[in-house]
Amino acid sequence: MSDVWGENIKISIFGESHGVAIGVVIDGLPAGVTLDLEFLRAEMRRRAPGFCEFSTPRKETDEVEILSGVYNGITTGSALCGIIRNTNTRSQDYKPHLLRPGHADFTAFIKYGGFADPRGGGHFSGRLTAPLVFAGAIAKQILRERNIDINARIVRIGQACIESNAEFTANSCELHDSFKEEILRAKASGDSVGGAIECVINGIPAGVGAPIFSSVESKISAMMFSVPAVKAVEFGAGVAFAEMRGSNANDEFYVENGEVRTKTNNNGGVNGGISNGMPIVFRATFKPTPSISMSQNTVDIEKMKNTTVEIEGRHDPCIVPRAVVVVEAAAALCILDLMGVRKYV
Amino acid sequence: MSDVWGENIKISIFGESHGVAIGVVIDGLPAGVTLDLEFLRAEMRRRAPGFCEFSTPRKETDEVEILSGVYNGITTGSALCGIIRNTNTRSQDYKPHLLRPGHADFTAFIKYGGFADPRGGGHFSGRLTAPLVFAGAIAKQILRERNIDINARIVRIGQACIESNAEFTANSCELHDSFKEEILRAKASGDSVGGAIECVINGIPAGVGAPIFSSVESKISAMMFSVPAVKAVEFGAGVAFAEMRGSNANDEFYVENGEVRTKTNNNGGVNGGISNGMPIVFRATFKPTPSISMSQNTVDIEKMKNTTVEIEGRHDPCIVPRAVVVVEAAAALCILDLMGVRKYV
Amino acid sequence: MSDVWGENIKISIFGESHGVAIGVVIDGLPAGVTLDLEFLRAEMRRRAPGFCEFSTPRKETDEVEILSGVYNGITTGSALCGIIRNTNTRSQDYKPHLLRPGHADFTAFIKYGGFADPRGGGHFSGRLTAPLVFAGAIAKQILRERNIDINARIVRIGQACIESNAEFTANSCELHDSFKEEILRAKASGDSVGGAIECVINGIPAGVGAPIFSSVESKISAMMFSVPAVKAVEFGAGVAFAEMRGSNANDEFYVENGEVRTKTNNNGGVNGGISNGMPIVFRATFKPTPSISMSQNTVDIEKMKNTTVEIEGRHDPCIVPRAVVVVEAAAALCILDLMGVRKYV
Amino acid sequence: MSDVWGENIKISIFGESHGVAIGVVIDGLPAGVTLDLEFLRAEMRRRAPGFCEFSTPRKETDEVEILSGVYNGITTGSALCGIIRNTNTRSQDYKPHLLRPGHADFTAFIKYGGFADPRGGGHFSGRLTAPLVFAGAIAKQILRERNIDINARIVRIGQACIESNAEFTANSCELHDSFKEEILRAKASGDSVGGAIECVINGIPAGVGAPIFSSVESKISAMMFSVPAVKAVEFGAGVAFAEMRGSNANDEFYVENGEVRTKTNNNGGVNGGISNGMPIVFRATFKPTPSISMSQNTVDIEKMKNTTVEIEGRHDPCIVPRAVVVVEAAAALCILDLMGVRKYV
Repeated sequence: MSDVWGENIKISIFGESHGVAIGVVIDGLPAGVTLDLEFLRAEMRRRAPGFCEFSTPRKETDEVEILSGVYNGITTGSALCGIIRNTNTRSQDYKPHLLRPGHADFTAFIKYGGFADPRGGGHFSGRLTAPLVFAGAIAKQILRERNIDINARIVRIGQACIESNAEFTANSCELHDSFKEEILRAKASGDSVGGAIECVINGIPAGVGAPIFSSVESKISAMMFSVPAVKAVEFGAGVAFAEMRGSNANDEFYVENGEVRTKTNNNGGVNGGISNGMPIVFRATFKPTPSISMSQNTVDIEKMKNTTVEIEGRHDPCIVPRAVVVVEAAAALCILDLMGVRKYV
Repeated sequence: MSDVWGENIKISIFGESHGVAIGVVIDGLPAGVTLDLEFLRAEMRRRAPGFCEFSTPRKETDEVEILSGVYNGITTGSALCGIIRNTNTRSQDYKPHLLRPGHADFTAFIKYGGFADPRGGGHFSGRLTAPLVFAGAIAKQILRERNIDINARIVRIGQACIESNAEFTANSCELHDSFKEEILRAKASGDSVGGAIECVINGIPAGVGAPIFSSVESKISAMMFSVPAVKAVEFGAGVAFAEMRGSNANDEFYVENGEVRTKTNNNGGVNGGISNGMPIVFRATFKPTPSISMSQNTVDIEKMKNTTVEIEGRHDPCIVPRAVVVVEAAAALCILDLMGVRKYV
Repeated sequence: MSDVWGENIKISIFGESHGVAIGVVIDGLPAGVTLDLEFLRAEMRRRAPGFCEFSTPRKETDEVEILSGVYNGITTGSALCGIIRNTNTRSQDYKPHLLRPGHADFTAFIKYGGFADPRGGGHFSGRLTAPLVFAGAIAKQILRERNIDINARIVRIGQACIESNAEFTANSCELHDSFKEEILRAKASGDSVGGAIECVINGIPAGVGAPIFSSVESKISAMMFSVPAVKAVEFGAGVAFAEMRGSNANDEFYVENGEVRTKTNNNGGVNGGISNGMPIVFRATFKPTPSISMSQNTVDIEKMKNTTVEIEGRHDPCIVPRAVVVVEAAAALCILDLMGVRKYV
Repeated sequence: MSDVWGENIKISIFGESHGVAIGVVIDGLPAGVTLDLEFLRAEMRRRAPGFCEFSTPRKETDEVEILSGVYNGITTGSALCGIIRNTNTRSQDYKPHLLRPGHADFTAFIKYGGFADPRGGGHFSGRLTAPLVFAGAIAKQILRERNIDINARIVRIGQACIESNAEFTANSCELHDSFKEEILRAKASGDSVGGAIECVINGIPAGVGAPIFSSVESKISAMMFSVPAVKAVEFGAGVAFAEMRGSNANDEFYVENGEVRTKTNNNGGVNGGISNGMPIVFRATFKPTPSISMSQNTVDIEKMKNTTVEIEGRHDPCIVPRAVVVVEAAAALCILDLMGVRKYV
């Protein structure tokens, strides 16, 4: 089922980029949580266009209206629905019959028989990550109260990368100069560029997750691949494991102050699908924004003939800066779902 | 839920490495499929220890007894249960209080309060992939009748790799010489080595999968990370996307003989979570087998003190050759679940 | 999970009686359905207060705003969210600390630690059946195009009953005189009265449903018991089966015009959990509206002491007339979920 | 999905009456439960044929072999699979082309295209309740440790009934004389007879269940209608509510020793879908066994012509006595699933 997710909490995401509204229903939240509205708004701003440098100038206020599940500012324990009205849309920019390479125009056409809303990517738009960030921000707030912190940051954009284990500057939109340069260079040639985001989850107790189908990695990867443009997910040493020997890859255990820890964290905090108490570390690779201003060969799906397309409108030359908070939100929802929520009974 | 998976078909996997039996219940299979028992056995042999060179000498016949769901050799449409009795176990090799680095001994201890079956990794053992291969073989047979073929092969072991797009020698256990050498070298030093497997799914029509939570990538990655030792999953260009420009990454469309295709397949056959008719291509990275014969630092969890462990018994210096069929089986189950099965009503 | 339901289609219901809005997200609808808005509105009116005689004078326009999943009046195949703003609320009528007998005040207090929205029953209000009717009306429209018709009617109110197999006057709010009298008599004494609704589903092909956990009866009963005030669900002869002999209870088969039918329909169209091609017939019993104007003994949950409560405000003396369309909607969703929807791929 | 059930625990039931084996996989059990094997066997005996008077003389030892999930007699926290080998089958008694009235022969034929195992009802056989009783017995043991007791008993067979609130003689197969007489009378004429079972769950704390789709009633009714032959499910006053006034139906609250209770229990312990701390009380109506020795009109499905059938073999004239433990088992699984299980993390 495409738009419903979760076991202990369930979220339903709905909406199209240029439809009436986008939103999310979150079911299974604990009752009694005083929502930190300022924090929720700040998280929404981190994803909003126009917040980071280099993002599309299209302005969306992305103000969430909460319709249910909150009474006097406190969660009731019933389903919480938040919606964001779409504004400032320019649907005349879109020509649905010209398949944009790298986008879902063709697959949506086939799957929905031509009935999908084509405006701005419709339900496939990256804009659908806004309700995900909203739901994730609530999850983050709840996890924060259990001393679990989730921080993501860019580790690569094009040819520029930073060391994976460098100190985190959490929650900042300040881009490293080398990242800025890569983006500006792509932008200058009417092109776009990809990148990678690393996420670290601190404070997770050992014992979260399960073997086989409910592994921490299964949960997080499924969610991460639900984020448009993600094409690879790695845990700990990730793809580098293929070149490693067991003697280097294994994380040796030691005990200190009555706590079992590992000397290295190649496994990214997960053994046998279950958290081992070390930070959970994963990386998501984002492909370059498929919207580029250069002319591209494609197919006119109505006439079924070859042609070219130039994508008008203004688009992010790099989606990665705005995706940092999306990665954190997605991770927060996974962890909350795996851990479950406090119940009164 | 750790041991149940799927929507259109559901599988429940059970068993411990040295328990009475391991097995799987498959619910939702179509009625009327004459099982190709020879094919099922051949697939089981591809995973069985002792089949490929370099695998552990522990012999398991891995003969599946079908308990239900089949009448006169034909599926009935009711749940099919297949079990494999465990034999030739040597449980005296295991010392559960000494946490083996890279294994799930510690996380299982924490999660199950010391009650998990420790013998041979118990429920965390790679042996649990045997029922997965059995279920996957049935899925492969059903998909084959729809002209969908799934083939995986090793693309890297340690420092040895082959070009990702080279011709496939499907379903063979013949190892490239360079791979053999890497494994022998690791084995000689009592060590193990990791690797990567690429899987290609041909014949998938456009339109399978869905945006957001039921993306083809979400489905496949969640399943792949359920396979012990998998630590990275990539689609198409995968991690290389981070360094690419949109102009190179986008797969341009063209029409030929009334069919829409793409010139390149960087997206691995998936746009917006939905198959686009091109082959689905993904890679899974396996970490080195954590069982090595070298002495390792660790913790005695009973005494809560630092110590060392030497893992006795004979283990695969590289799990990757036996995992090829596991990757195919896992992929087959995902595709069958996404596409659904024929019903009489 | 309390607010999410379904397998082939999934619905998420949200909202509180006196909150900002109530609504529903419907996931899994087929693309390409031109919504019959007039029919949807007519169905909403059948449930709305003030439509039937004897219902509460509280007026809710119950106009549904569709936020997503529809483009140019046609379903897109993506999740459809419909919301109904709450108006005309009189929250001063409610004193949450006085537990109203027969209501969920006490259980909500315990389950949600006092954080549930108490106004008008909050999330427990019968008002939450409005989004159910909306979703069900869409399901009915889709089923109608497959020649499946769903009609419910009142068969008992208090001491008045009509023969179960009498001709149906479908979709009418015209009450039999005997039913009117029962309601007026209850109302006159500040009391309320219960009743029973029978639902008949015509046009269902044989083969829908499954043995054991996905029986037609399991599906429908679970949904019916989700409707506030339902306390019994019977199929076919229902509770009368307890007094029957097999020779009378069995529905003998005969063949006519190449079609297998049964002479009687004691089994209500279901054998072994699967539809047999005869009309599916079930009955739901509704308890009397717990809101009565007579003084009742109860507990002040804040002071934990015995007291009395008089429920102010105006309430339906009998909820059954407004529930007819709710029963039909609930049945339609069950049948659509069991049968699945047309897909383009 | 027909054979998989549950959220906090999941069970998969498999097998056919005359196949190799029937069984169940139970996922999500807590680790550390020392199975009370004697109790499990005693529960199995309560359902086994030949245990109660009047049941079919076909003897099944119904010895469960546990394949997984238990180590040294204690649950490991991994999936537990128990199987029962089928013995003493007499498949020559069955003529699948002659549709037995009241049975699933016709619906199975349609749904599975003639591929269902017809022997002894195959997957539709009441024999499939044996693994349900096994799983339910484990659930009962776990609930017993939380002081939750589940007891069912017959309240009606044919014309004989006992008062609903009479003292329980728990877990006994001793039949009231009036029940014996009803069964003997039906048996004497080669007929069968139906009945009703009442189940009372004591010790449930207030707050279990949820409004709307996860109501206690939804959960229990869905499970009860999964039991072959159940055709009605009522909670508390059940169908009698239709004739009641609110002033009689409402259960008034009072406080005693710091505990909120209700004076009556017409609502069967559930308000708004959530347990209120009073005993949960429900009734299931069973139709008469469809297997009767009298000649019945039916259809030969191969020749598609009208004919008659005489059902040979020996069958229960009344299934109700053996169903008492099935009702308890089903209820136990529902309550355990709603309450969830203790986890170490």
